[in-house]
Amino acid sequence: MSKKVGVVLSGCGVYDGTEVHEAVLTLLALDQRGAEVVMAAPDKEQAHVINHLTGEVDPHPRNVLVESARIARGTIKPLAELQADEIDALVFPGGFGGAKNLSDFAFQGAAMTVDPDVTRIVDAMRAAGKPIGFICITPTLAAKLIPGVTITLGCACDASEASSGLGATHVETEVHETVIDAANKVVSTSAYMLGPWVANVHKGIDKLVGELLEMA
Amino acid sequence: MSKKVGVVLSGCGVYDGTEVHEAVLTLLALDQRGAEVVMAAPDKEQAHVINHLTGEVDPHPRNVLVESARIARGTIKPLAELQADEIDALVFPGGFGGAKNLSDFAFQGAAMTVDPDVTRIVDAMRAAGKPIGFICITPTLAAKLIPGVTITLGCACDASEASSGLGATHVETEVHETVIDAANKVVSTSAYMLGPWVANVHKGIDKLVGELLEMA
Repeated sequence: MSKKVGVVLSGCGVYDGTEVHEAVLTLLALDQRGAEVVMAAPDKEQAHVINHLTGEVDPHPRNVLVESARIARGTIKPLAELQADEIDALVFPGGFGGAKNLSDFAFQGAAMTVDPDVTRIVDAMRAAGKPIGFICITPTLAAKLIPGVTITLGCACDASEASSGLGATHVETEVHETVIDAANKVVSTSAYMLGPWVANVHKGIDKLVGELLEMA
Repeated sequence: MSKKVGVVLSGCGVYDGTEVHEAVLTLLALDQRGAEVVMAAPDKEQAHVINHLTGEVDPHPRNVLVESARIARGTIKPLAELQADEIDALVFPGGFGGAKNLSDFAFQGAAMTVDPDVTRIVDAMRAAGKPIGFICITPTLAAKLIPGVTITLGCACDASEASSGLGATHVETEVHETVIDAANKVVSTSAYMLGPWVANVHKGIDKLVGELLEMA
């Protein structure tokens, strides 16, 4: 029986949504290990839209679920419909969408709030004893939602300090490494928090996916 | 000296732009082999915008270069500025963008026309004896621009029949395979023309990138 893994997206593009490379590398690592995926994203307006060429804000709104469907090739459902009992593990690729659409960490720092459907599915996975992977900036979600969790964001930086302020234990790592919190069934890796480019990021994500499936 | 490879994007999303997985897997295979990339895309309006969740046309226009920058993480230039003398090889990831923005093959079939900057860079690479890789639907560009070229689109299908009508020799392949036309320094692979999912597509693209760099 192949394992089924929920992949939570937050748009399509590093500056206002899911980091595209991280999402695809997550899907690659899952498929290479024979895991099935169920993709989901919040059905709501993005916090904002960034022109990825100029860095400017584009005033025309976009929807998180609709843009995430670009990465998913169309097969994706509202996060509100994702249930812990249909999956064996859950993973959050990174990108600013994790800190702008799944939470408001990019705007509020340690005073962050988390999207209610993210909170719901993380709580449900924990209650069911099922593992969760957090990539890039999304370990900040774990810091907020899982008391005393141990995570990595790679570097000692504003995000790691904020996470420590939320009660998390932060471990510095290199890009090819992961941190496992076995008690909480959480694994994290820094990906493009460190980068600098796709082959390095691939190493950490591939390791994370392997460890996530072992815990499932 | 690492090799420098031009990667031509056509938007961000399988139905109206670059197929996201194919682009990332191309970047992965290049980076794993130590190649530098120069990304480029036409600076023009997309043929149309497709809501990837519903399949409907979205009336609000998007720019090919600006959307491609989502895959490129911001570092990309107008295709008009890409010169054959700055790169050792060129590669076109697929997606409908190759048949809607780089050409109008999706709308015109064998009566297709090709974006002038695509024609210019392909002609310049050929004149310089430098190799070109075509992925997924983009071998139709080769069929149009390179007389008598040998390509694969994977399956015997409308696209392969149209390519044969343009004078190309089409070879049926499986998703993990490539076809090399050594005389024309062209290599092609079917990717999501066959799929069905990311690990299979990775095999063919990884092989194509290795062969492209060997020819460079």
